Amino acid sequence: MARQERAIRTRESILESMASLFIEVGYEAATIAALVERTGLTRGALYFHFPTKESMAHGVLARAVTREGILPQTYKLQEWVDLGLLLAHRLPREPMLRAAVQLSVDPKARTLFGTRWPDWIDLGQDLLVEAKERGELLPHAVPAEIARLAVGAWTGVQLVTEALPEDRALSEEIARLYQLILPNIASIGVLAKLDTSPYRAERLLDSAAVEEPVH
Amino acid sequence: MARQERAIRTRESILESMASLFIEVGYEAATIAALVERTGLTRGALYFHFPTKESMAHGVLARAVTREGILPQTYKLQEWVDLGLLLAHRLPREPMLRAAVQLSVDPKARTLFGTRWPDWIDLGQDLLVEAKERGELLPHAVPAEIARLAVGAWTGVQLVTEALPEDRALSEEIARLYQLILPNIASIGVLAKLDTSPYRAERLLDSAAVEEPVH
Repeated sequence: MARQERAIRTRESILESMASLFIEVGYEAATIAALVERTGLTRGALYFHFPTKESMAHGVLARAVTREGILPQTYKLQEWVDLGLLLAHRLPREPMLRAAVQLSVDPKARTLFGTRWPDWIDLGQDLLVEAKERGELLPHAVPAEIARLAVGAWTGVQLVTEALPEDRALSEEIARLYQLILPNIASIGVLAKLDTSPYRAERLLDSAAVEEPVH
Repeated sequence: MARQERAIRTRESILESMASLFIEVGYEAATIAALVERTGLTRGALYFHFPTKESMAHGVLARAVTREGILPQTYKLQEWVDLGLLLAHRLPREPMLRAAVQLSVDPKARTLFGTRWPDWIDLGQDLLVEAKERGELLPHAVPAEIARLAVGAWTGVQLVTEALPEDRALSEEIARLYQLILPNIASIGVLAKLDTSPYRAERLLDSAAVEEPVH
């Protein structure tokens, strides 16, 4: 493994450990001392990659908005649904994504770094505007409002799902959320053709992996 | 003012100050020292009412689930909507309610105290089950699922609305949320008669005040 590649991996692994700490104890209580203990690296090694805790929070948030796994679909509305289903599949598996939500709902972290919600809303809105132009949405559906409400609803369903004792799969809850709102958004013929299965995300990621082989 | 009444007021005012601190800096960073500074009370006076920070968090969460303002309506589904509209009206005005949400999304506070989301879900589910028995819901609508998703969606829309720079009224965003999901829940004739106006909550609180005069 080349030296540069090793450095990138170390950097990612530090960031993932810090992300786990953000999730477990919150931004304020996630200290460099705890990170030293968790990673087994020296303070010097950590500081080489990230000079401050703030820079790690920035690193986490920078990875929070992603179109990974999104493939072109017949309906733009399906791509919008895929965005939410993919994130629901990935978030419980990737501490970095959960940590980004955690930083967004933490008062201190939010003041320091803002949130990535406006970027998610923009991403969704672009897809919904295109869906509307193609006639996929009902006439009364307003892309900006739906994009905004959906990001809020998605986030809250995630937070409540992980807090409830029943241990429900996030991908199933998010699928139900889309099934609840889509009948009031999608043109009726398009609605019948949308796939809101909680297992869709996994299939999408598999196809993406086939289309773009890992180097 | 009787001594007991004064004690109750002091207790409430301490709790409100601590609630504001929870909102501004999070559970971890909200210290008794900061509370002393904010209230002007001595540590002794504070400890007389609340022996620990934990007891204040419990006090905040105990006030978080409320049917205040809910009046009997022709449709149980309207009462379910009123629950959400009332909370949307009150939350930006009452630090105690915002702080309860903040404590629920804070990893450390959540571990210590749990959340009140199960109670909100139960409250909503009871109303939706009754609405279903009366034929107010569409046949496919499952009260337990809708109650759970709505608590999640409500919470997330609140968090995103307060974080976005546009300064939107929560009551208007929550009204839009209900307008988005109700067409897929309510029987069509009932849907036409539901009031989802963002101004409804204020009217309800006024009527409640008239029906139950303040002593």
